[in-house]
Amino acid sequence: MSETPLYASRLFPPVRRRAADASASTMNLLESLGYVARTDATGVFTLLPLGLRVHDRLVRIARTAFEERGANTVAFPTLQSRSLWEQSGRWEVYQSEGALLTSTSRGGEQMCLAPTSEEIASATVREHVRSHRDLPVRLFLSTSKFRDEIAPRGGLMRGREFTMADAYTFDTDPQGMRTSASFLNDACRAALVGMGLTGVFQAAADGGSISAGPTTEHLVLGDTGQSSILVCDHCGHRGDHAILGGRPVPQSDPVVNVIAFALTAHDGTTTPAAVVIRSDLQVSPRKLAAASGAARVALLEPAHLPEHFGKEAGTITPWDCTGTATFFDESVAHLDTFAISDGATGLRRNVTWSGTKDLAALSPTAVNLHRAAEGMKCSHCEDGHYREARAIELAHVFELGTQYAAPMNLSFTDEHGTAHTPYSACSGIGITRCLQTLADLHRDNAGLRWKPDTAPADFHITVLRPDLPAMRERTERVVQHLRGRGAALFIDDRHEPAGEKFRYASLLGLPHRLVLSPQQQDDEVELVNRWTTRTSRAPISQIPDTWSLH
Amino acid sequence: MSETPLYASRLFPPVRRRAADASASTMNLLESLGYVARTDATGVFTLLPLGLRVHDRLVRIARTAFEERGANTVAFPTLQSRSLWEQSGRWEVYQSEGALLTSTSRGGEQMCLAPTSEEIASATVREHVRSHRDLPVRLFLSTSKFRDEIAPRGGLMRGREFTMADAYTFDTDPQGMRTSASFLNDACRAALVGMGLTGVFQAAADGGSISAGPTTEHLVLGDTGQSSILVCDHCGHRGDHAILGGRPVPQSDPVVNVIAFALTAHDGTTTPAAVVIRSDLQVSPRKLAAASGAARVALLEPAHLPEHFGKEAGTITPWDCTGTATFFDESVAHLDTFAISDGATGLRRNVTWSGTKDLAALSPTAVNLHRAAEGMKCSHCEDGHYREARAIELAHVFELGTQYAAPMNLSFTDEHGTAHTPYSACSGIGITRCLQTLADLHRDNAGLRWKPDTAPADFHITVLRPDLPAMRERTERVVQHLRGRGAALFIDDRHEPAGEKFRYASLLGLPHRLVLSPQQQDDEVELVNRWTTRTSRAPISQIPDTWSLH
Repeated sequence: MSETPLYASRLFPPVRRRAADASASTMNLLESLGYVARTDATGVFTLLPLGLRVHDRLVRIARTAFEERGANTVAFPTLQSRSLWEQSGRWEVYQSEGALLTSTSRGGEQMCLAPTSEEIASATVREHVRSHRDLPVRLFLSTSKFRDEIAPRGGLMRGREFTMADAYTFDTDPQGMRTSASFLNDACRAALVGMGLTGVFQAAADGGSISAGPTTEHLVLGDTGQSSILVCDHCGHRGDHAILGGRPVPQSDPVVNVIAFALTAHDGTTTPAAVVIRSDLQVSPRKLAAASGAARVALLEPAHLPEHFGKEAGTITPWDCTGTATFFDESVAHLDTFAISDGATGLRRNVTWSGTKDLAALSPTAVNLHRAAEGMKCSHCEDGHYREARAIELAHVFELGTQYAAPMNLSFTDEHGTAHTPYSACSGIGITRCLQTLADLHRDNAGLRWKPDTAPADFHITVLRPDLPAMRERTERVVQHLRGRGAALFIDDRHEPAGEKFRYASLLGLPHRLVLSPQQQDDEVELVNRWTTRTSRAPISQIPDTWSLH
Repeated sequence: MSETPLYASRLFPPVRRRAADASASTMNLLESLGYVARTDATGVFTLLPLGLRVHDRLVRIARTAFEERGANTVAFPTLQSRSLWEQSGRWEVYQSEGALLTSTSRGGEQMCLAPTSEEIASATVREHVRSHRDLPVRLFLSTSKFRDEIAPRGGLMRGREFTMADAYTFDTDPQGMRTSASFLNDACRAALVGMGLTGVFQAAADGGSISAGPTTEHLVLGDTGQSSILVCDHCGHRGDHAILGGRPVPQSDPVVNVIAFALTAHDGTTTPAAVVIRSDLQVSPRKLAAASGAARVALLEPAHLPEHFGKEAGTITPWDCTGTATFFDESVAHLDTFAISDGATGLRRNVTWSGTKDLAALSPTAVNLHRAAEGMKCSHCEDGHYREARAIELAHVFELGTQYAAPMNLSFTDEHGTAHTPYSACSGIGITRCLQTLADLHRDNAGLRWKPDTAPADFHITVLRPDLPAMRERTERVVQHLRGRGAALFIDDRHEPAGEKFRYASLLGLPHRLVLSPQQQDDEVELVNRWTTRTSRAPISQIPDTWSLH
């Protein structure tokens, strides 16, 4: 038997006549139609019956996508001990970012409310994994997460309490980790496509406080998104500014700058480095890390410039970098003449790489180190140019390496009994964010529109004249028939005029509508498709066979 | 298609040979078999794949029980503002009890982690309900709850983070509230019976910090229970000491005491009262409240005794109570002679109600005011006697009246436009507690035993010789067939000896076992019922038809 049907006459909140305005913002529409409700804690929401059904279907789709690919589903708790988060060193990181919500027990035990699950996933694997035969481990969960956002906004898009479907993998080596990262990307993609999100694309991105390694975002274009990305106006190629290889437009009077960085290697040692780049461009730390092999990249403190370059900030030229690892961005390598700022008054113009007055010849080797930006030439099709666009980050996959496993002392033994540290990856899908994104991307000017698998129910049954016993009896027959076929139902049995009920059905947005009216023959119903707006008639017994649910 | 099958070869945690000891405690068995895991926060647990599947089925059973009876399911958040909890006056109450876990945002906003949901349910209804036509409202939810237990123990029986399936009702008047309380009791009972819990009984109980009104506990007898109740050794009648009407055994030299109380009426006024009771018995404040109509009952401070009775504690006799409301417990009303303590040295013996030296005649009217206790005569069958027993509280239903609605300013208008305060009731089912209780009550000396609707899967498929391609192919065929029939599957495809796999199947406790062996004919499987231990054979195509799932 299918889910319990929802009846409009006894739905909570009570359905009001002309309750919602189809031109309202998506969040307002979700609120006025009774999908979600704000609480008096900012960025914290209640899921009402309609919204909860959508939410649960999204969770089920994500869970199935991961389980069918071999993941084990667990539920980690909200409360996690400070000592656990200190093992990874992230208690301080999250505290200093201000994002951690904490609580102290009456016994003085400090805990946080899980913002993500790397620590407890690692601790759980540490407890249970012994040998290489126990790996890989791939764990999935879908639980509430908590982040003390400084300015929660956009409704469910960025709340302080939200549902995240996350996953954690543990492998014997980097190759296994990359296989698991592919697994995570596949599963995230399958989950998002399964939710009916068309136009999802992947882009390399920045790992923030989660990861220093390579990461992949799953995004859709959308004006309500909080991610800014670049899209080629010709071929549609798109991605993050820090990653895309856009080609800068040539300039008539280029100026060449030197930017000094501190590179920290995987063994913790730090060395200086210089990046030579056209003055209108920014260095992408991500690209510099990739080019140099550094684990971390930071700007060099101005106070340290004289000791490495013998000059102050703003006066260093490529010719001052001879004692330092120097990287030439491709924006400067092929310039015929250019200007530099070497400490004299104004710029020194007409400088060339092949030697100029007082300057020896240099042979810069081109590397792409600049952040891509609006107006640059697409590095994919060579014909278009990048334009700024807003995008919504729906999922994120991270290659973590041993970033958590090493400090938390995870280990497994290989076939010779030697101990090694496992390699991890992880992913997260913002379920509540997907809910609002689906509502936002699919709505039209009559209201919301849900695809079959993610709607609060499969059928919206509009009953005209529910005051007539014959109509109530017919309704009951239709309900029993469709429930027996596994369909989830929403039944508008209110005593309201037909026009109000049709308008409400459009607002609510269920994909398939049935109209039961006293004017129909007893066995017949009217069918309306919310997406195509096509109307047809069919005998009750032929539904849903004659009318695909999808 | 059914849930994704679980394969033992890739289950997390890895299945170990001889992993569990069938004689271990239930919690240890659940841990060693990979149902649940402790975390390093006391009383906080991870649900592992097997345990999570049981948990999710219990939640689904409870949700269906409430929804099919008309409740609307919502999900209230974990984070709830201090200001909300101050509206009901419970921020201070819970804080002083030490049970509230709190968190403060970086903006200084104080919040608690929901221990229960009366406040947010009331605030949500306040927002959405306007008229008597919007009532009754019946909300159900199943979310994590948090209580800072001073000594979490018994594994899932009393954790600091646990799943509670709670419900909240709002009606126009007390009669409606009582109808809703019946609805809650029915739904709780249906949920517990649906979970396969036989022997659930209801007993009137005490509301603690939730409610001052009548409450009903749903209990099962069990040694691991933290509730102490009385059970008649003849008819099985059972209940709470404070509520049961047990008859005390007559004494040869009874002593009659006076206990002074302060009764607080519903309008807040407080008056003194005296209870005359046999000295070996205790007064039940619950019964005194019912007999006197008081909203709250407390012992009168000894310092106030002289002003009301003219005497000190320990010297007051029934003859000193003439100016005060006096209640006679049935243990004293029919005594021929008895002793009192009136301040003279020793007891004054051979006192009678019909007048004795210096004492006038009194006419006590019998009321049952004493707490029932072990050894008392059963008030139900009159033949047996009550014995102490341990019981597990699985659900609790409370009549709240306007206890939350009034201070939180909920109101609705009647048909004349006049505003009134709605009447509430609520209930809670401890889902994680039910999980452990089911495991505990149903296990036998070979391991766990699950009933079909609450098992981690419907079928445990033991594959012998999974190294043979033919066996793997057969397994796949059986899996596809049973999944197509909607069955949830656990497949032991490990390369282990048959004995180990049979022992593991008994430990894990799934109700229906299939054995696939190379010795069988291709289409045939062996069936083993974990409960009856009966073994039979059937063609694959006839499963599950020939073998009821229940």
